[in-house]
Amino acid sequence: MKYGFGIDLGGTTVKIAYFDQEGTMLQNWEIPTVTANGGKQILPDIAASIRQFMDANNIADTAVLGLGIGVPGPVSGKGVVNKCINLGWGVFNIAEELTALTGFPVKAGNDANVAALGEFWKGGGQGCENMVFVTLGTGVGGGIVVDGRLMHGSHGSGAEIGHMVLDKNEPVACNCGKHGCVEQYCSATGISTLAKRRVAKDDAPSTLRGLNTVTAKDIFDAGKAGDAVALEILDQYYDYMGEFLGSLCSVVDPEVVVLGGGVSKAGAVLLEGVEKAFQKYVFHAASGAKFALASLGNDAGAYGAFKLALDAFGA
Amino acid sequence: MKYGFGIDLGGTTVKIAYFDQEGTMLQNWEIPTVTANGGKQILPDIAASIRQFMDANNIADTAVLGLGIGVPGPVSGKGVVNKCINLGWGVFNIAEELTALTGFPVKAGNDANVAALGEFWKGGGQGCENMVFVTLGTGVGGGIVVDGRLMHGSHGSGAEIGHMVLDKNEPVACNCGKHGCVEQYCSATGISTLAKRRVAKDDAPSTLRGLNTVTAKDIFDAGKAGDAVALEILDQYYDYMGEFLGSLCSVVDPEVVVLGGGVSKAGAVLLEGVEKAFQKYVFHAASGAKFALASLGNDAGAYGAFKLALDAFGA
Repeated sequence: MKYGFGIDLGGTTVKIAYFDQEGTMLQNWEIPTVTANGGKQILPDIAASIRQFMDANNIADTAVLGLGIGVPGPVSGKGVVNKCINLGWGVFNIAEELTALTGFPVKAGNDANVAALGEFWKGGGQGCENMVFVTLGTGVGGGIVVDGRLMHGSHGSGAEIGHMVLDKNEPVACNCGKHGCVEQYCSATGISTLAKRRVAKDDAPSTLRGLNTVTAKDIFDAGKAGDAVALEILDQYYDYMGEFLGSLCSVVDPEVVVLGGGVSKAGAVLLEGVEKAFQKYVFHAASGAKFALASLGNDAGAYGAFKLALDAFGA
Repeated sequence: MKYGFGIDLGGTTVKIAYFDQEGTMLQNWEIPTVTANGGKQILPDIAASIRQFMDANNIADTAVLGLGIGVPGPVSGKGVVNKCINLGWGVFNIAEELTALTGFPVKAGNDANVAALGEFWKGGGQGCENMVFVTLGTGVGGGIVVDGRLMHGSHGSGAEIGHMVLDKNEPVACNCGKHGCVEQYCSATGISTLAKRRVAKDDAPSTLRGLNTVTAKDIFDAGKAGDAVALEILDQYYDYMGEFLGSLCSVVDPEVVVLGGGVSKAGAVLLEGVEKAFQKYVFHAASGAKFALASLGNDAGAYGAFKLALDAFGA
């Protein structure tokens, strides 16, 4: 039996997990991400933490097949990071540098794509060959698996599905500078925007009016309690999600669409609403896609990162 | 040196071509597609035609690595055709059946995907790893190559990019039954519709008014001659194309977008117009995609079909 590490590098913490080659997470922990000085300390910190863990547990170097790491920015197939603004990083080969620091072979990928690979391997997409993974968080990110392989894209940031255009006439700009991106309607922030706009439209009574900030959870809760305005907002949300995923799946034709991120905590009611709207917008040949919730939560990135290493250096 | 056949099976003719393993098309010809009796004669006709060609040219069976065939309908990775309405076909394994008839191994794929593979190999996408191929004909079809491999999709008809949604408020239904598909605006038929709608809107003078039916060529020609109405129609067309390809490339992040089909005969002016609009809609990380014209014309399907066989059975 061989072992390895999956590393999920975020803007505030680094999640590190130790796996056996079957994908059992044997141990996991976090260290802070030190972004000072252009993030120069990040990789040495990771290397030291892994070495400390190995020493404490008497793990021989020969038992380790390699490391995988998910990075919050574009990464080429050869491991070249092309700027991670959150970390202060420029352009360099992270795989080579982390190998030099640890002595182990390293495979790197974009964090959203890597999380998709984790859900594909051990989460909501288990057992399928083609999968679309969507994270509905502050933004909308995701990853696409085609015939069992991650779609990295030719510039290393592949599957920027949150920036497909849904309404080119949207007056407000997206964070990316374009107008009417999926992210502006379908993210946790997006559904709050839809709520704000709906509430401002007229005087219809709603429990949402009493709130200072309306979160995705508030809207789903009010919907469950039968609040008519909340139900209207949810219908509009499902319609945007259906159009977005209908277009996307007409292209990708996956077996499964896995929904993760904060909004997905709404659970079955979300799946049901989205799937119904999806059928209105998807091309018939791709309409058999199943919907599932992500099941690995914050560990998806570590699972996927280890899988990257396993695919590259295992057996 | 080994050899093989690429077969492009259409609703009225079957194009058959003989290749060496380097991809040189040594010979090509056509036979009619006999769709009577549920298309039962189609595969025996192909087998007989290939055998006749081999006999006439003294080609030994041992020189042939295999056959590839593109089919106008969904085909699974294992060669199972799932209904070709134009041919009268139901569900059966075309690879097994054509192997039984010819004695050669067979690989089958959807015709639009196979044409994409042809352009990727020997046409407008040569030398890249990730490509989007778009045919702008009566409809909008295409294929997507990810890391050198065709994206077939889990139901075998992958990359139905013509049925991404551009305007869900479109009152007229698409042939597929949905509303506002890419195909309704971006196909040769689509641009004629845009012209009809624009001309009907007011009394602005235009040479397009004199015509019974306005074709894509008429519109591009009038645009070149400075017709203001035609230029407006073209701007609208480029905007739809830009939105469509901007969304698609934000997902796929290809190096090259290859445009083929009837509308692509407009040439450089089309590329220029589309690329400009594309920059407005694509996510910045994917904005480096280059635009190129398809270069294999009606032979793309035969090239791609042979490439399928070469990838599967060649050395």
